[in-house]
Amino acid sequence: MIEHGIQLDKDRRARLGFDEAIYAAGKSGEQLEALIGEAVESASSRLFTRLGPQQFEALPSLHQDALDYDVLSRTGIVNGSCIVVKDVPVAVLTAGSSDLPVAREVLRTLEYHGCRAMSVNDVGVAGLWRLLSRVDELRRMSVLVVAAGMEGALVSVVGGLLPGAVIALPTSVGYGVSAGGRTALHGALASCAPGVLVVNIDNGYGAACAALRILQAARPSADQVLRGTH
Amino acid sequence: MIEHGIQLDKDRRARLGFDEAIYAAGKSGEQLEALIGEAVESASSRLFTRLGPQQFEALPSLHQDALDYDVLSRTGIVNGSCIVVKDVPVAVLTAGSSDLPVAREVLRTLEYHGCRAMSVNDVGVAGLWRLLSRVDELRRMSVLVVAAGMEGALVSVVGGLLPGAVIALPTSVGYGVSAGGRTALHGALASCAPGVLVVNIDNGYGAACAALRILQAARPSADQVLRGTH
Amino acid sequence: MIEHGIQLDKDRRARLGFDEAIYAAGKSGEQLEALIGEAVESASSRLFTRLGPQQFEALPSLHQDALDYDVLSRTGIVNGSCIVVKDVPVAVLTAGSSDLPVAREVLRTLEYHGCRAMSVNDVGVAGLWRLLSRVDELRRMSVLVVAAGMEGALVSVVGGLLPGAVIALPTSVGYGVSAGGRTALHGALASCAPGVLVVNIDNGYGAACAALRILQAARPSADQVLRGTH
Amino acid sequence: MIEHGIQLDKDRRARLGFDEAIYAAGKSGEQLEALIGEAVESASSRLFTRLGPQQFEALPSLHQDALDYDVLSRTGIVNGSCIVVKDVPVAVLTAGSSDLPVAREVLRTLEYHGCRAMSVNDVGVAGLWRLLSRVDELRRMSVLVVAAGMEGALVSVVGGLLPGAVIALPTSVGYGVSAGGRTALHGALASCAPGVLVVNIDNGYGAACAALRILQAARPSADQVLRGTH
Amino acid sequence: MIEHGIQLDKDRRARLGFDEAIYAAGKSGEQLEALIGEAVESASSRLFTRLGPQQFEALPSLHQDALDYDVLSRTGIVNGSCIVVKDVPVAVLTAGSSDLPVAREVLRTLEYHGCRAMSVNDVGVAGLWRLLSRVDELRRMSVLVVAAGMEGALVSVVGGLLPGAVIALPTSVGYGVSAGGRTALHGALASCAPGVLVVNIDNGYGAACAALRILQAARPSADQVLRGTH
Amino acid sequence: MIEHGIQLDKDRRARLGFDEAIYAAGKSGEQLEALIGEAVESASSRLFTRLGPQQFEALPSLHQDALDYDVLSRTGIVNGSCIVVKDVPVAVLTAGSSDLPVAREVLRTLEYHGCRAMSVNDVGVAGLWRLLSRVDELRRMSVLVVAAGMEGALVSVVGGLLPGAVIALPTSVGYGVSAGGRTALHGALASCAPGVLVVNIDNGYGAACAALRILQAARPSADQVLRGTH
Amino acid sequence: MIEHGIQLDKDRRARLGFDEAIYAAGKSGEQLEALIGEAVESASSRLFTRLGPQQFEALPSLHQDALDYDVLSRTGIVNGSCIVVKDVPVAVLTAGSSDLPVAREVLRTLEYHGCRAMSVNDVGVAGLWRLLSRVDELRRMSVLVVAAGMEGALVSVVGGLLPGAVIALPTSVGYGVSAGGRTALHGALASCAPGVLVVNIDNGYGAACAALRILQAARPSADQVLRGTH
Amino acid sequence: MIEHGIQLDKDRRARLGFDEAIYAAGKSGEQLEALIGEAVESASSRLFTRLGPQQFEALPSLHQDALDYDVLSRTGIVNGSCIVVKDVPVAVLTAGSSDLPVAREVLRTLEYHGCRAMSVNDVGVAGLWRLLSRVDELRRMSVLVVAAGMEGALVSVVGGLLPGAVIALPTSVGYGVSAGGRTALHGALASCAPGVLVVNIDNGYGAACAALRILQAARPSADQVLRGTH
Repeated sequence: MIEHGIQLDKDRRARLGFDEAIYAAGKSGEQLEALIGEAVESASSRLFTRLGPQQFEALPSLHQDALDYDVLSRTGIVNGSCIVVKDVPVAVLTAGSSDLPVAREVLRTLEYHGCRAMSVNDVGVAGLWRLLSRVDELRRMSVLVVAAGMEGALVSVVGGLLPGAVIALPTSVGYGVSAGGRTALHGALASCAPGVLVVNIDNGYGAACAALRILQAARPSADQVLRGTH
Repeated sequence: MIEHGIQLDKDRRARLGFDEAIYAAGKSGEQLEALIGEAVESASSRLFTRLGPQQFEALPSLHQDALDYDVLSRTGIVNGSCIVVKDVPVAVLTAGSSDLPVAREVLRTLEYHGCRAMSVNDVGVAGLWRLLSRVDELRRMSVLVVAAGMEGALVSVVGGLLPGAVIALPTSVGYGVSAGGRTALHGALASCAPGVLVVNIDNGYGAACAALRILQAARPSADQVLRGTH
Repeated sequence: MIEHGIQLDKDRRARLGFDEAIYAAGKSGEQLEALIGEAVESASSRLFTRLGPQQFEALPSLHQDALDYDVLSRTGIVNGSCIVVKDVPVAVLTAGSSDLPVAREVLRTLEYHGCRAMSVNDVGVAGLWRLLSRVDELRRMSVLVVAAGMEGALVSVVGGLLPGAVIALPTSVGYGVSAGGRTALHGALASCAPGVLVVNIDNGYGAACAALRILQAARPSADQVLRGTH
Repeated sequence: MIEHGIQLDKDRRARLGFDEAIYAAGKSGEQLEALIGEAVESASSRLFTRLGPQQFEALPSLHQDALDYDVLSRTGIVNGSCIVVKDVPVAVLTAGSSDLPVAREVLRTLEYHGCRAMSVNDVGVAGLWRLLSRVDELRRMSVLVVAAGMEGALVSVVGGLLPGAVIALPTSVGYGVSAGGRTALHGALASCAPGVLVVNIDNGYGAACAALRILQAARPSADQVLRGTH
Repeated sequence: MIEHGIQLDKDRRARLGFDEAIYAAGKSGEQLEALIGEAVESASSRLFTRLGPQQFEALPSLHQDALDYDVLSRTGIVNGSCIVVKDVPVAVLTAGSSDLPVAREVLRTLEYHGCRAMSVNDVGVAGLWRLLSRVDELRRMSVLVVAAGMEGALVSVVGGLLPGAVIALPTSVGYGVSAGGRTALHGALASCAPGVLVVNIDNGYGAACAALRILQAARPSADQVLRGTH
Repeated sequence: MIEHGIQLDKDRRARLGFDEAIYAAGKSGEQLEALIGEAVESASSRLFTRLGPQQFEALPSLHQDALDYDVLSRTGIVNGSCIVVKDVPVAVLTAGSSDLPVAREVLRTLEYHGCRAMSVNDVGVAGLWRLLSRVDELRRMSVLVVAAGMEGALVSVVGGLLPGAVIALPTSVGYGVSAGGRTALHGALASCAPGVLVVNIDNGYGAACAALRILQAARPSADQVLRGTH
Repeated sequence: MIEHGIQLDKDRRARLGFDEAIYAAGKSGEQLEALIGEAVESASSRLFTRLGPQQFEALPSLHQDALDYDVLSRTGIVNGSCIVVKDVPVAVLTAGSSDLPVAREVLRTLEYHGCRAMSVNDVGVAGLWRLLSRVDELRRMSVLVVAAGMEGALVSVVGGLLPGAVIALPTSVGYGVSAGGRTALHGALASCAPGVLVVNIDNGYGAACAALRILQAARPSADQVLRGTH
Repeated sequence: MIEHGIQLDKDRRARLGFDEAIYAAGKSGEQLEALIGEAVESASSRLFTRLGPQQFEALPSLHQDALDYDVLSRTGIVNGSCIVVKDVPVAVLTAGSSDLPVAREVLRTLEYHGCRAMSVNDVGVAGLWRLLSRVDELRRMSVLVVAAGMEGALVSVVGGLLPGAVIALPTSVGYGVSAGGRTALHGALASCAPGVLVVNIDNGYGAACAALRILQAARPSADQVLRGTH
């Protein structure tokens, strides 16, 4: 354990195929500076999630410059420019524009691990034609991440139409009974479409890691490639 | 209050346009016999809901004969043969065959009040083509009652496609997080389709009464007709 | 999808009979400006809901001027002056003065669609005479929207007295067990008055859309008129 | 502690003004026999609550004869015939006939303590005239116990109309969101009528004890009388 | 309804024996000024609850001076100096010092209605001797209001020791499972002490109104006196 | 729709890569007989889930003989003997022996689709050595289905040790706070191990379908093979 | 794993200081017979918990005879007669007689491990004198297990009076808000008495194991003795 | 009760073996000043918990100087320098660095009572080797406090590996289903590891008091020493 009081699981990529991310919510400026500095010094890449704009702006400019920061998804990447990104058969769908921040956490986490996914926005079932017009394109995807809040009906429609692995990513978008994301979560778990998989509410990082696990499973040899990226 | 200990709201049809039904769950054999007998003697029609097969079979044969009993919906009707039934622009949809008992309570309650609705079964979104093939027909309906358990995604798809008044009728079909119907209920309340209306879980009688209120609203003159049926 | 990242369902009025509203909560200033600007340029009317005063005041004055903004209901309307508004047989009731903001979202959404409803405030059952004195007037209404928080007993009293379609609109008014509106919601769903219909907590926009669906159902020919308003 | 393994709080009447009742649910036949026998031998009165018909019928006929048993309320009283019962200004109201068993537990507990209350059944707000016709009579009551399930709106209407102490007694009558009585309970706690008091779901015994505490408070001298009844 | 948009239930004291209070939470400065001004002009007393310090300080000094404001309980009284206050057999207990604000809302509401209660602080059961030393004094009380958060065990101990009417007033004091007051509320409802009565979490005003109802019930003649105070 | 009132989604295997199973819970004997008979006559394979022993034993012997029935998992297969089963890199783990029925539903569903998985029982973390001794073997698996009730800690340990796709299958094993499976479900969703995927409580069929989706994703060519099995 | 499909953690006593018990709920007769037979043959002691009377009575008489069965606690012990039992400073208290079965599971589990605890029944706070009269005796205890349902106030009173380690054991005794034991559980967790420890609802076995852990911690040398009992 | 309105339970150390701490959350500056001043004047030590940095910084410098304040755990100690601290066989573990504040409240409370525990950070099961490498060291501990949020799987792993008394301390670390700490709490209560004990979410003070109770139980003579510290 170094001076920031955090014991990184540096062995994780070798063991699981992807890196530990730093969950920045609630961390102090001192801890963040130490973690960024350490990554810079060791010339290793590192991913920060849930890094709020206030936290980012309070960093010294040296540390801000070292970060590729995206305010929408609240993610920051150190030494991301060395990562070689290739297209993978993964699509990330949103039901509405309010689901974009969570969807973008998926995309950024995948990119950090060298994978570029397709992004398909605002295809909620209140305007069903928006999804139906893209079904042929989506049938070619191995993994479909579906970010949806409110009642999350998009998950069931996607799961009923497409053969890929469906990862439901419920979001905390909504009010009244859907506030906090429980309704979208339960809707995905109880989906009438068979074989839908679910992650925690707003857990874009987890959905991306799950997609990486599936891609590894799908390409036994690529797995070694993936681990050797940087 | 008569000897069965129940004070009927006999003025209800004049005031609201439909009758009080007898909620039979938990009532004793004595109470049921008295209520059936009273209806027979006064030659007035009466609707019983949640009348279980055990309750029905425990009745004297005289009382059984006086009842038009439907075991699937657990409804019984006294003097139903005098009711003149006409087609109304109401459709009752089910997501799966397990939702049939609740849907049938809607149909039977409507028939008791002289209204014959269209029935459309097993059109859940896991096989979306089953619904899409009937959209044109359903666009002509003034009221769409959608009985669905599990996650109830059918409600949102119907609400997004069709202009009629949508009454979501969540059912207690499911297990795990959808056991008891809460997930279907919350999904309907949080639907991304605008203007969806919701009744309590398994409340087929209530959905039918709501449809009757809307039909009355729609046909100010028919309203008097409806009240005068028997 | 245009530069604000939102894909409007412009076909909705033709399909369902009413417009998609812009749910402004959580949208950035840039998104709001683009959406207002687009509506102004295309000379089309547009409704914004949940537009907070801070969001409104942060807009450029040009955009503020383009909006008919109502702070109580947090709604804004672009090009609303062209809308021809007619009286419809809809009443919007509140149990207490704290329910006014939600009730006003109903009224504003109806007005945006050319419908002027009757407003009846502060008729909660703790002072029952306030409602009873207006029963005759309310019997003539086709739709009764009842906005109530706390325990929402007004819904049951209205549903027991009046034959119109009752839309319960639970509000998040209250504290302790009624904080957030769940008690009012459950009370409406479990109402002893038959045929009560319910929308999500604080969902004034949804209650108005439901009323529009019912009015369309009621007046098959008016439906075409309604769709052709602007 | 005697051989039935139960340590009675025999001092309770002296301390609080009423007796400990035996909560029979879950007790074995041996325990019940011992407790009945002990009361008979000591010639003291005793109240049993939640004594199911199976439990009663499994008792030896000697013990059955010693009990004044009421199957509706599942209460049994030993040596009840010695109790002198007087009218007290307490009314017990039910919203529907399904609330009768719980209401009857109130009445029987009061009678066991020498108090005869007024019983007013089936006055739920779906048929509001049933309550309004009795308001004058009820204004003379010091305590109003209101047994109601479903949404329990009767509690608020009573609390808004009448000056007596209102004890809401939520019942587990209902299904869907009102199954188990939580909706009625929360509705009573959140009532817009000021000063409503609440007991646990189906707790008729507790409502009666609360009424006895209030009667004692009201009649400081009667208190001694009450304690000296037998 | 006057210009502040609120329809007071001015008949309440005649009907129920106490006044409607103004629930100030969420009310605008304009509404509060109008309501205070109206009370001053008509020389009638008025009680405001949940009036936050920011709301109070934002009032014009004229209106501030007209209010007897208590920041701990967030209550304000207009024309309170004319109220004649007499001792009543009511005690208000707190389990801990964090329960004082809610307890004080009880005391202030009672004083507004001419009743001075006894106040007993910090007698939670973790230091049981603090309560036991005062039992004799408390046995003389007709009503015991017990304000307690966390697990609320004080309610059961008081209910087991004392014969008066016990009003449990759960408070939102606590964290983890007791955050928001649900654990204290449920504990009071499930109390093993018989005949405990419960009001909503933090509802000091309601507990006071309930005490007034009981005092009225107890002293039929004093009732008239109470109503005629001002 | 045929006479059993059920509209099968026969196109599902072509669209998604696996068959619709018949959820037998709640179906009548008539419906089951018709569905079995239809499968026998058309010489097509069919899977029944949640088929209880009473339901099975009530079938005519002809229909019993047509079913390969497994009482532990409550599954039945028609024409299963024609299915060619091959080993796939999927392991199904249980935390305790009470999780076996749900795990077996996974294994049977996979076998029905031609896939034989590895089964690893009773490796819960209370005896951690049982899992650690098998880690090398499990690292070769593409998919790890983890059936666990109570607190489900096995999910996190597996997810932290192994690179395959982890499908958490919470079971309803437990009592008190874990009764019904909510604690195991929430534990899996909140797992500190990254990229864990979750299905509904006791949903063995869904976990198997998800594994099939992943296997299809992993072997694009095998996908065609899989669909052509029978 | 032997033929009953269960992999016992036989190393547990060496590792933790106590044995794995067989949780019999849901186990088949075959499994139970095999597990009893195995224990008899290997002459080792074994504890069965949640072994219902129906399960016991369905066993062959040979197996029944091998079990020391206690119907109240639903526990069975094989080869218990060889266990040497000594008094330990542990007391097991119940609030009411309905808590006896759970308390007895604690006592039997302790006895199985060679420890005899003191039993103190029916000392709930509704009759506080029953506990106060025994405080001196209880102050000498190192561990106090408090079995209580309903609101569980006894836990706080014991925790405030006595210095020993307090293990709250909430029971599922109660109805309405206390049904299932959640209120007692939350009350114990939120107790105002400092340092109270809690186990799952009805988990008598767990409370006993916790007491054994504490006794081991307390007597480092006794620990070896304890492990060597049989 | 002195002028700060708080009645300290000064007898607590004599009765229970440890002091009452001042729960500072929600206390005013005046109350805090009085309580600190009183401790300084009487030269007695005192512990403040949940004392936020804003509260600390708002104190006069005289009072700030009298406090040994730790911002991470939000604890303050008056006259702490006189406390003699000795090593005790207690370890405090955290699953992740976000659990440090709560763990530190445990350590500080123990130190205040003269006990120095071992601290073991960041040993969550996602990187299981971090815990396994320290098992031998931890086997020597009498008490293991495990602070863990999210799903809290560390509790079960520790409970399965180590014989000491395990005190699970769930933290409110997490989001979605684990927000607020309920999932970690329920996971600990339902742990498959036998004899795990649990305290309320984030209750570091309570976990420390429980450890002190166990240490007292373990060392009967040390108990007197402990009480005589200052």
